[in-house]
Amino acid sequence: MKVNNKDMRPIWADPEDTSAVCVIDQRLLPHEFKVLTLKTVDETIYAIKEMVVRGAPLIGATGAYGVFLSTLTSGQGSVADLDTDCRKLKDARPTAVNLAWAVDRVFDAVKNLEEPEARIREARRLAAEITDEEAENCRKIGEFGLSIIRDIHKKNPGKPVNILTHCNAGWLACVDYGTATAPMYAAHDAGIPIHVWVDETRPLNQGARLTAWELGKHGVKHTVITDNAGGHLMQHGMVDLVITGTDRTTYTGDVANKIGTYLKALAARDNGIPFYVALPSSTFDWTMKNGVTDIPIEVRNPDEVSRVQGLFNGDIVSVLLPPSDSPCANYAFDVTPARLVTGFITERGVCAASEDGVMGLFPERF
Amino acid sequence: MKVNNKDMRPIWADPEDTSAVCVIDQRLLPHEFKVLTLKTVDETIYAIKEMVVRGAPLIGATGAYGVFLSTLTSGQGSVADLDTDCRKLKDARPTAVNLAWAVDRVFDAVKNLEEPEARIREARRLAAEITDEEAENCRKIGEFGLSIIRDIHKKNPGKPVNILTHCNAGWLACVDYGTATAPMYAAHDAGIPIHVWVDETRPLNQGARLTAWELGKHGVKHTVITDNAGGHLMQHGMVDLVITGTDRTTYTGDVANKIGTYLKALAARDNGIPFYVALPSSTFDWTMKNGVTDIPIEVRNPDEVSRVQGLFNGDIVSVLLPPSDSPCANYAFDVTPARLVTGFITERGVCAASEDGVMGLFPERF
Repeated sequence: MKVNNKDMRPIWADPEDTSAVCVIDQRLLPHEFKVLTLKTVDETIYAIKEMVVRGAPLIGATGAYGVFLSTLTSGQGSVADLDTDCRKLKDARPTAVNLAWAVDRVFDAVKNLEEPEARIREARRLAAEITDEEAENCRKIGEFGLSIIRDIHKKNPGKPVNILTHCNAGWLACVDYGTATAPMYAAHDAGIPIHVWVDETRPLNQGARLTAWELGKHGVKHTVITDNAGGHLMQHGMVDLVITGTDRTTYTGDVANKIGTYLKALAARDNGIPFYVALPSSTFDWTMKNGVTDIPIEVRNPDEVSRVQGLFNGDIVSVLLPPSDSPCANYAFDVTPARLVTGFITERGVCAASEDGVMGLFPERF
Repeated sequence: MKVNNKDMRPIWADPEDTSAVCVIDQRLLPHEFKVLTLKTVDETIYAIKEMVVRGAPLIGATGAYGVFLSTLTSGQGSVADLDTDCRKLKDARPTAVNLAWAVDRVFDAVKNLEEPEARIREARRLAAEITDEEAENCRKIGEFGLSIIRDIHKKNPGKPVNILTHCNAGWLACVDYGTATAPMYAAHDAGIPIHVWVDETRPLNQGARLTAWELGKHGVKHTVITDNAGGHLMQHGMVDLVITGTDRTTYTGDVANKIGTYLKALAARDNGIPFYVALPSSTFDWTMKNGVTDIPIEVRNPDEVSRVQGLFNGDIVSVLLPPSDSPCANYAFDVTPARLVTGFITERGVCAASEDGVMGLFPERF
């Protein structure tokens, strides 16, 4: 997507230095745009651990490039050195399924190559391929989601389509296009007038910080709102469509996503507004039946609730909100039951949020 | 209510200086507890305008004490001076109905008194009386709400009653007890174990800043959460009861309150959890039938959304969250339709959130 009229991804092989990889430092956004150059496995691990990069697809792509950086040094030695690096990479965020999958895929492809140069070449090629695959999935999600937005626009061609989203399921997390944002970028690029209501998404404000930055840089009209505001907007006809991403979705249609998603789905249902979830099929959990009772919800550091990060006098600082002795709780995700979800937008098309709907698009999984 | 084991209100006549009134400076809470002494009408106007004091009942009480301070100076002169001061006081926050009502009540009571000393005495007495009346209404709300909490506790005596609240409808806003908090303090003081989930309440975080401070100072167990979290807690049996305040409620039962209240009411309904609104009858609008379509919703300064105030290195500062060029919108209130409200807790008792219910308690209004 565009940043200052230049096509950009959150990760790319450095065109001027064939032994380096570049990433956008997402910790500093939106107040500072800084590119970090990764030249070693340790620097890659740091970038993943410290959330320089975040979002499952991007973490996977970063891991794949980490294996490439390992081949530059360990490639001279034994496969054992490469294997050690790969284990360290996978440990950087152990719960990230995409990370282990991408690292293993590159490792398996190069471990039997004799020539160090061949290992380097193949690792670099495959990391780029994995990155492109993620982008291509998101591009397809965008195409399928575009038709939903186009249909809404046709009913009322005189006015922009108002879309509400929660958190950041954008290109910063997904290599390119994003998931929830992909239909928005596709509609914008197709000349359909849209306006996006961006939930700030406490506690970490990924909406206010990242989604607003992405949309603004690509030229998409948007307005940042508090997480409290969406219900009022929906009651008063100011939202035509809700699209969010998801961290895990059961094959029966229950959607785990950033905390607060469930409240927006309830408001959408109460006001007859379509509520879509955009996801690559890798996000489906093909084994879990009841998301509300069975998906484990991560409880994160309460400091994320008690403190807010922002810009003060040119520096990014963190301020304390409640009394220092008031406990805080930080449930990071919630589960929206399938009954509140209008449909899924996947790389294979749009389907109902139900076992039958998902089976229709992915029969080989059933 | 208690602050450091001492009974306290947000406003009181200075016992050591009969020509002064004391108020808690609510702008600095929870990070600094500071009492301001008001000695003139101009200082009183400043306190109201700059939100040293806030909350309809407290603004009314402050206005009444402002008339008392005026009698100390203007009382020596003509009634015209007093009248001018009263007009200035009422202009401090022109939309606050309680302010005009309280100022007029004191002015009307003293304007025909000949003796300056009699004016001073009567203004001081009446300001205290108005303050006590507000407190007494809230005390009664607490008593009626206590029976609801007691009934829930009886069903499961082994565990604390979990109550969720939004914003600050506490004693800081209401002279004493509060509205939404009154049943909580009554239950706590009656020895019923309770725990309060405090919505931080963006944009101005009155929950994290004021409700958490109040509850903590009185010794009530509580946990601060983001506004996004309540739905998840309700889904998982962690909330027994929701109680909020209201800024305006139609006689048909529609409730205008701080933005985000509607989302919590939807989640309570979806999970079969009782959702009560606590209010003195002065908050009813006896003329308006449809709150969702007819109650005007204040749109406030977008800077309240883009910036958050908190403690940094010992100072209270404000940090910027989104990109500086991303627009923000700040809808301050929303309306919860009567169909989502279990009942009203008023100074006359508990009733259904419907025209019939309200008529049953306040027949003289119909």
